[in-house]
Amino acid sequence: MSISSFHPPQRTLMGPGPSDVNPRILEAMSRPTIGHLDPEFIRMMDEMKELLQYAFQTKNKMTMPVSAPGSAGMECCFVNLVEPGDKVIVCQNGVFGGRMKENVTRSGGVVIPVDDEWGKAVDPVKLEETLKSNPDVKLVAFVHAETSTGALSDAKTLVELAHKYNCLTIVDAVTSLGGVPVLVDEWGIDAIYSGSQKCLSCTPGLSPVSFNDAALEKISQRKHPVQSWFLDLNLVMGYWGEGAKRAYHHTAPINALYALHEALVILQEEGLETAWKRHQLNHLALRAGVAALGLEFIAKEDERLPQLNTVTIPQGIDDATVRNRLLQDYNLEIGAGLGALAGKTWRIGLMGHASNKTNVLFCLGALEAILTDMGADIKSGVAVKAASSAYA
Amino acid sequence: MSISSFHPPQRTLMGPGPSDVNPRILEAMSRPTIGHLDPEFIRMMDEMKELLQYAFQTKNKMTMPVSAPGSAGMECCFVNLVEPGDKVIVCQNGVFGGRMKENVTRSGGVVIPVDDEWGKAVDPVKLEETLKSNPDVKLVAFVHAETSTGALSDAKTLVELAHKYNCLTIVDAVTSLGGVPVLVDEWGIDAIYSGSQKCLSCTPGLSPVSFNDAALEKISQRKHPVQSWFLDLNLVMGYWGEGAKRAYHHTAPINALYALHEALVILQEEGLETAWKRHQLNHLALRAGVAALGLEFIAKEDERLPQLNTVTIPQGIDDATVRNRLLQDYNLEIGAGLGALAGKTWRIGLMGHASNKTNVLFCLGALEAILTDMGADIKSGVAVKAASSAYA
Repeated sequence: MSISSFHPPQRTLMGPGPSDVNPRILEAMSRPTIGHLDPEFIRMMDEMKELLQYAFQTKNKMTMPVSAPGSAGMECCFVNLVEPGDKVIVCQNGVFGGRMKENVTRSGGVVIPVDDEWGKAVDPVKLEETLKSNPDVKLVAFVHAETSTGALSDAKTLVELAHKYNCLTIVDAVTSLGGVPVLVDEWGIDAIYSGSQKCLSCTPGLSPVSFNDAALEKISQRKHPVQSWFLDLNLVMGYWGEGAKRAYHHTAPINALYALHEALVILQEEGLETAWKRHQLNHLALRAGVAALGLEFIAKEDERLPQLNTVTIPQGIDDATVRNRLLQDYNLEIGAGLGALAGKTWRIGLMGHASNKTNVLFCLGALEAILTDMGADIKSGVAVKAASSAYA
Repeated sequence: MSISSFHPPQRTLMGPGPSDVNPRILEAMSRPTIGHLDPEFIRMMDEMKELLQYAFQTKNKMTMPVSAPGSAGMECCFVNLVEPGDKVIVCQNGVFGGRMKENVTRSGGVVIPVDDEWGKAVDPVKLEETLKSNPDVKLVAFVHAETSTGALSDAKTLVELAHKYNCLTIVDAVTSLGGVPVLVDEWGIDAIYSGSQKCLSCTPGLSPVSFNDAALEKISQRKHPVQSWFLDLNLVMGYWGEGAKRAYHHTAPINALYALHEALVILQEEGLETAWKRHQLNHLALRAGVAALGLEFIAKEDERLPQLNTVTIPQGIDDATVRNRLLQDYNLEIGAGLGALAGKTWRIGLMGHASNKTNVLFCLGALEAILTDMGADIKSGVAVKAASSAYA
């Protein structure tokens, strides 16, 4: 055996995440490693919390990154908030709602499903009916931005309904944070998790979470210990909590945290509102282009994520062939369909740093060339021109 | 709020981990992010498995890094192997055995303790007595290299005993892997976990694990689903398994994996045996130096880890004062005592890249200067000279 250093190709990342990483973030990641209890590191952790509070628009003290990818952030919310026997409404309109159900069951809870068609937003009417007929439900969980379909749900309304029926809420904001408004305090979200590698444009591996006082109150009244030692918030907060004295829990992923810190500094510099507008602008340009190519969105216009564009694959066009050619000939990654939408859709991400004019025009030009080459009847340059006009 | 980029100081890391990271690894970490299903990334994953098999000295197919720190690697072993009601012998001789007990309980298992004094190796005689008197025990778990005390246990003998009584074994090799022999196949270890940030000298955040067929057999016969979705090996292996087709489970921490790959390439280049010898050589030099300073080791000579030197703090010397001065005046981190040894010991790491002559002499010189300054009666230059001689 003799294996040499790995030198990855330089791709353009327009899938469902990871998205293109700002070179500033990659450089930050390579800064010298220091100890997880170093006073300088603890100062960085305090800044991180403040930066995450800004990103989540919250004053929640319990705001920090879980030291593992978004799936672990999801699990952190469920294992801490669900006790054995708890009834939990899970609204599912794509892959990730299904994963929430798995998490409830494995935490000993009972799932009350509210199922919606994939590609549609979660239906508040169905949620309220289910809340009415299940007065003993403790929690409502839903995905704000479904990464598998590109559908955006109305988090504000869903949280209001949950509260009306005395339920706490767990919200998946993996794909929404930084790309569209996520107003934790204004909407009253009780527990929320996200991922580093979507609209924050950081490298994957961390999951920002935030919990409000009502959520912490439920956790403090648990009768059973949290089943996960690694994700037990009571223990994690001994390390991420307040004050200069921090108790060792686990060894923090130091350099990954440098990267997330830098990503959040970049977000702060741009400003949340400006970032949201940029995501919308590039989405509209891409939309004009894909319309010119004859592709259709899965999600309705008013339920559509600007940062994740899920579009139908034209009839007679083979999914894998196109994605392979994009990767091999253009070093461009777009996403395959997931779950029920596999083989039927593409997911074109315009997340964070990747949400820019160059990427939009490059991707449309590449798609146009490949589809034409495969026999599609497309007027030359039509997609790129349409998108360009949208910027004018 | 306006927070700027974080620029960490350049420290020398001689604590219990993270250890000094080879600049090659930091550079690898900053290479361009690619997708977690990119064919090039999958090729890298295959190499990673091969490199980890070498590090663990195993042919186990189920050998891969968990996408989270060592504590999650520990949890991965316990939640997959322990079923509700299973009796598990946990040998505790320091902090991390205690954490194992927590993991057993939270997985629904019943702990049968074998407790040894902190600083001593796990006693095989006690283990055998406990095995004899508990014929229904399913698993034996112990820490190979106790990071809290610097004690090395005889993993080969402990595993043999466990197997004699038809138990499977879970071994914590967080601090041992790469620093002293860890021979998974030769010793017959069934499940093992480690950490990236100790003798592999990578950044923290990943936990290499390996499971043999007997362990996989127990997992496949589980009656209860694994309580953690994120750590469920059946799901994880859909992504880390064999063949070109990988199922998405979670988004892998791409850049952290580049770093671990590079760390393992470096280990392969040096060779395991050479790395073990280097750790021993530098330990002997440090030992000569600390003896000259009048410090004593907690662990007996034949149970002592070369990579983690836990020594007593001289009477009348304040722990925190010394460590703060080392950090502030020398940019040098050594470890505090943990648990029962807090305030009474220092932990001087010589792990991976940090196990070198410069670090040994620098640390001894710094300690000598500070202790002398605090009134200790030490002959000038005695520690550095003693260590230097050990290299001659």
